[in-house]
Amino acid sequence: MKNKTETLQVPGFKAGAVKAGIRGKDRLDVGLIYSEVLASAAGVFTTSKVKAAPVLLDMEHLHKNGQAQAIIVNSGIANACTGQTGMELARGTARLVGRELDIPADLVQVTSTGVIGEQLDLSLFSRCMGGLKESLRETGFMDVARAMMTTDTVRKTAFRTVDLSGKIVTLFGMAKGAGMIMPNMATMLGFIVSDASVNPDALQSMLRESVKQSFNAITVDGDTSTNDTVLLLANGKAGNDTLTDIASEDFVRFCQCLNELCLDLALQIVKDGEGATKLVTVHVKGAPDAKDADRAARTIANSNLVKTAFFGEDANWGRIIAALGRSGVEFDESLVDISFDDVMMVRDGLGLGKDQEEKATAVLKQDAFVVVIDLKTGNSEAKIYTCDFSLDYVKINADYRT
Amino acid sequence: MKNKTETLQVPGFKAGAVKAGIRGKDRLDVGLIYSEVLASAAGVFTTSKVKAAPVLLDMEHLHKNGQAQAIIVNSGIANACTGQTGMELARGTARLVGRELDIPADLVQVTSTGVIGEQLDLSLFSRCMGGLKESLRETGFMDVARAMMTTDTVRKTAFRTVDLSGKIVTLFGMAKGAGMIMPNMATMLGFIVSDASVNPDALQSMLRESVKQSFNAITVDGDTSTNDTVLLLANGKAGNDTLTDIASEDFVRFCQCLNELCLDLALQIVKDGEGATKLVTVHVKGAPDAKDADRAARTIANSNLVKTAFFGEDANWGRIIAALGRSGVEFDESLVDISFDDVMMVRDGLGLGKDQEEKATAVLKQDAFVVVIDLKTGNSEAKIYTCDFSLDYVKINADYRT
Repeated sequence: MKNKTETLQVPGFKAGAVKAGIRGKDRLDVGLIYSEVLASAAGVFTTSKVKAAPVLLDMEHLHKNGQAQAIIVNSGIANACTGQTGMELARGTARLVGRELDIPADLVQVTSTGVIGEQLDLSLFSRCMGGLKESLRETGFMDVARAMMTTDTVRKTAFRTVDLSGKIVTLFGMAKGAGMIMPNMATMLGFIVSDASVNPDALQSMLRESVKQSFNAITVDGDTSTNDTVLLLANGKAGNDTLTDIASEDFVRFCQCLNELCLDLALQIVKDGEGATKLVTVHVKGAPDAKDADRAARTIANSNLVKTAFFGEDANWGRIIAALGRSGVEFDESLVDISFDDVMMVRDGLGLGKDQEEKATAVLKQDAFVVVIDLKTGNSEAKIYTCDFSLDYVKINADYRT
Repeated sequence: MKNKTETLQVPGFKAGAVKAGIRGKDRLDVGLIYSEVLASAAGVFTTSKVKAAPVLLDMEHLHKNGQAQAIIVNSGIANACTGQTGMELARGTARLVGRELDIPADLVQVTSTGVIGEQLDLSLFSRCMGGLKESLRETGFMDVARAMMTTDTVRKTAFRTVDLSGKIVTLFGMAKGAGMIMPNMATMLGFIVSDASVNPDALQSMLRESVKQSFNAITVDGDTSTNDTVLLLANGKAGNDTLTDIASEDFVRFCQCLNELCLDLALQIVKDGEGATKLVTVHVKGAPDAKDADRAARTIANSNLVKTAFFGEDANWGRIIAALGRSGVEFDESLVDISFDDVMMVRDGLGLGKDQEEKATAVLKQDAFVVVIDLKTGNSEAKIYTCDFSLDYVKINADYRT
């Protein structure tokens, strides 16, 4: 019996994948998403100073058009740190896709994930292009989600519909990633397609907002990849009034749906984090401003000592307050409260003793829990989603290439 | 046969340790260092916003006097996040030592390392005080070095002499620490005693410089403790002309000796880092300024992906350049060179292929090596010392309290 998501469709989009031989012979490693009509397009890319060639190309294409009609993705080689040769390869790939689909090359978004520093072979792309076009079908998204996997253990997809003044609009998203950088297999990638009609500038601003509270609010190991990319294509097939006014009810409703979908995908990435056994939400509240809240939550969520304690199911609040102390955030130690779910461990900077610790340990035995740190000095808050830090993380990352 | 260091002495200093029962019954857990005469004193303390009670007390004492005559240390409990009760305990301890040694309480430096959030019991200190005084002897430093250990697997001591215009001056240092924070057993502590005569202000500035290139240039896991403390006492027994003029030859010579001793101790800490199997020097050069050089080296030295690759003996330069990319430092990717010892892996941002990778892998099999990253955009450089990241790190930190 097919999984329900196997048959999901988004009007006007087709997708497919092939075995191009980049990652051995018997593995889907190149995927294609195609919109029958020109779509508004938005992208959010890695903040790393070292950007992979396809990232640079996609930024150039989006800047020129604000539109796109196809996304091609390969796994196996990231095309990062590959110099001018890598840039020509990315351009060549866009040209091949453009020719095959009879669209301008600059309407193609090229994405790669895999080993840094190795060159891709353009002939592998030219040889698979015919088969890739043939593979396109309305229900092909799951094959793309498979082709973009590296050390991911599961495909990550999400589906939503939303009613915009009587028109039902569909969103389908897929993502890959299991570390901020995978074991030499770089990258978090996310693709979202929708039949909504949205003005390109509006699309870019809503994606940026959405990514902030989802993909940019997760951390597996604090590393950022050279290839991180989230793309959103909206082709207008749903026939809704084009979204442009951020104050309109439809605009707000669509953004909310997009936010939910992005957070859904982002949490799937954390849960599939390398070696992860637990999903942990670090919720800092009562901070003086949003920046400090974010900084405090990120420092705690990235602390190896905090994360190994989670793995060991040890309600070790000393490590949390120590991470807070070095975060650079201004706070008064004697005001801090710390809870695990609804079990308070620390009140006004002091531990509440063994009884509470036992209750907190029970919370830590769950697959998912929230750590709440209340600084009680302001009204800002932030949530960062992370996983625990297990023996398997080290195994995966030390043994990968051997 | 006794180790040579067991008999080392510094004129005018005595030291000793006892089993006070803070960490079980049969373990040295309180140590004392005593100078027969008033000594110039300097201290460098944790930059954490959350400072343990003894750290706050020591800062107050040093600020008042610039002098000290005793250092007491306990392991087992850090006296951090202990509020007003913890502060009174630290003051009480200083008073007990002062009464026993017949010196003012504010000439006592109090240091603690251990569990965060638990209260020490003053009666354990008052009961052991007589025995502690009796334990004092010229060759007692190694017992103090033992009493301050937590998850350290070896005692860390260093000894140097230097000729200052015909007077032989002695320095003896000891340190503890195996993570920036130990598994709930916080802290890096370092004590250095010397019979040099040094003006207190000069002593403070030379210690600060020395710590910068030694204790502050190491990282095991990127965490900072609530209790980090380095103290330097100089009692003048050597009879040298008091060091005050930073331009004098003696001053420079003493500083050089102090720098060497601090780096020696700091590297012992890295080598004994939790689960560490390799000592890695990350050397960034050609940076636009010193701050950028430091930031780049620190980001690489703290990257879990880089450190697990070292553990796996995988010459994975992609992870190094990815860490560099997210460090926030300005550089041109197409200029970067990366070498492991004298094996160049990357030139002008591009990998040099499989042959060089094989040679680099041989370098990684050593116990110690240097990774050189040349940004070729300026003249500044920085060295950060770190260890690899092994399965044992996670085991130690996940299992500690269970």
